Amino acid sequence: MPTHDPTPVTVIGLGSMGRALAEAFVAAGHPTTVWNRTPAKAAPLVAQGAVHAPTPRAAVEASPLVLTCLTTFQDTRSALEPAAEALAGRALVTLNSGSPAGARALAAWATGHGARFLAGAVKNVPSAVGAPDTLLYYGGDRTVFDAYAPTLRVLGGDTVHLGDETDLAALYESAVGAMLLPALVGFFQGAAAVQARGLEAASMVRYAEKWLDMIKALLPVFAREIDSGDYTDAASSVNLFLADADADPDEDTAVETAWLAPLHDLVRRAAAAGHGEHSISALTEVLRKPRQRA
Amino acid sequence: MPTHDPTPVTVIGLGSMGRALAEAFVAAGHPTTVWNRTPAKAAPLVAQGAVHAPTPRAAVEASPLVLTCLTTFQDTRSALEPAAEALAGRALVTLNSGSPAGARALAAWATGHGARFLAGAVKNVPSAVGAPDTLLYYGGDRTVFDAYAPTLRVLGGDTVHLGDETDLAALYESAVGAMLLPALVGFFQGAAAVQARGLEAASMVRYAEKWLDMIKALLPVFAREIDSGDYTDAASSVNLFLADADADPDEDTAVETAWLAPLHDLVRRAAAAGHGEHSISALTEVLRKPRQRA
Repeated sequence: MPTHDPTPVTVIGLGSMGRALAEAFVAAGHPTTVWNRTPAKAAPLVAQGAVHAPTPRAAVEASPLVLTCLTTFQDTRSALEPAAEALAGRALVTLNSGSPAGARALAAWATGHGARFLAGAVKNVPSAVGAPDTLLYYGGDRTVFDAYAPTLRVLGGDTVHLGDETDLAALYESAVGAMLLPALVGFFQGAAAVQARGLEAASMVRYAEKWLDMIKALLPVFAREIDSGDYTDAASSVNLFLADADADPDEDTAVETAWLAPLHDLVRRAAAAGHGEHSISALTEVLRKPRQRA
Repeated sequence: MPTHDPTPVTVIGLGSMGRALAEAFVAAGHPTTVWNRTPAKAAPLVAQGAVHAPTPRAAVEASPLVLTCLTTFQDTRSALEPAAEALAGRALVTLNSGSPAGARALAAWATGHGARFLAGAVKNVPSAVGAPDTLLYYGGDRTVFDAYAPTLRVLGGDTVHLGDETDLAALYESAVGAMLLPALVGFFQGAAAVQARGLEAASMVRYAEKWLDMIKALLPVFAREIDSGDYTDAASSVNLFLADADADPDEDTAVETAWLAPLHDLVRRAAAAGHGEHSISALTEVLRKPRQRA
């Protein structure tokens, strides 16, 4: 429980994540104003004590701290456009996915209207909002972060300011998030292969969890290799993956593996570039685009 | 320390994993015979007390339990071919990657020569061999597993018999392993993107570790959805990933993203098949190959 009057907050965008954010603020005793294009989505929050503003402008005017949780930066700008004049002097915090360029463009627009701006990301699922270990990170105006850190921490105990640049959360979001879809598709493919043998996907979960633990333990090692550019002390070499890439696809898996072909190509290109005996992290060198001509 | 005379073991194939296996047996007091095509690789093991056999046949004849750790099932067969007549009555345990079909073929060959056969996999890196939590799983002759479980457990405390079918380890190996390269390439791409901004790859490790924890926590949920075929209670929907798939690639990342295109295609196909509001785990349905005509 806060010992001072809790900061009034506004949450715009009530998808599953936006609802979770608003619920956390309501539960923590913050006067909470919400707005959503489809007002019905606000009903459960209103029942818990939130106020549904009739317009985006009224929603912005209700609080010194305005969080948006829409799908893209463009959606965010579209929703805020009618409230642009009300942004002056307020703190605007976006929590959506999107590119660094999108974050910078919205930052320019919002600060142009006098808002102080932070762009952040929730690194977890809606049900984890509010937990002590849940990570949210933000880039942008440090004074906003410092002023509202206790309020932002309501959304997750692991709340981090990445730096003053407004696109840092988007940068890390896309960098860290780049593992998600590929890892999941790998798991789904494995699940389909196991099921094709009449076994349950659940039977591989324990092994897959351990596999992720092992991958997790390797990340600091790989990061060190990538930062130093020294790939020679290879626990898992490119050639090890090359053997797998060059193996004949197993006819009896009953699962599509075409999506793996470009990954195997990266492995082959790394080997061809002389990284065969180097750590698999040397694939980073192959993933860098050649510098544009100056 | 074993209270009975430790079982003599032979390890054929002294790559980094094979060396780790042999070292663990030597350290646990097992009379350990090794063989490698390049004998120099055996020198450190011999210094620790292992015996380097002059031929594969001599290596096989030295122990009732013979482990191979070569790259493929074909390599294993090639190495064992000159020792085929010595296999009768011995337990042969393979620890290599390869397809279920490859495991079945080697099993047929080995049992045809009178060996009792287990095909297994080490689900970790060489440096983890021997640790209490290290996972190894095996498929095949249960009597071999039961007879030698204490010896096999020297290699890792989490030692599992998957079932009597000789290709089960290969099946789970490819199913569980399907996450590895995609997840790593995702991490490497993120590292390259962060570096292109002048930041260290190390700066994203903490976030990436948390991200993997989150993915890990989702696996049992996804497995339940996949096993039940009920994808309607979606914490992360296909449409959420579709927005990302359809976003313009960020021009300024300086990183190749072409390898993601087939993954985004899978997302689009799932949405087109009516899974838009379903859990992302519905991608499993898209990954199944259509049944061949009967």
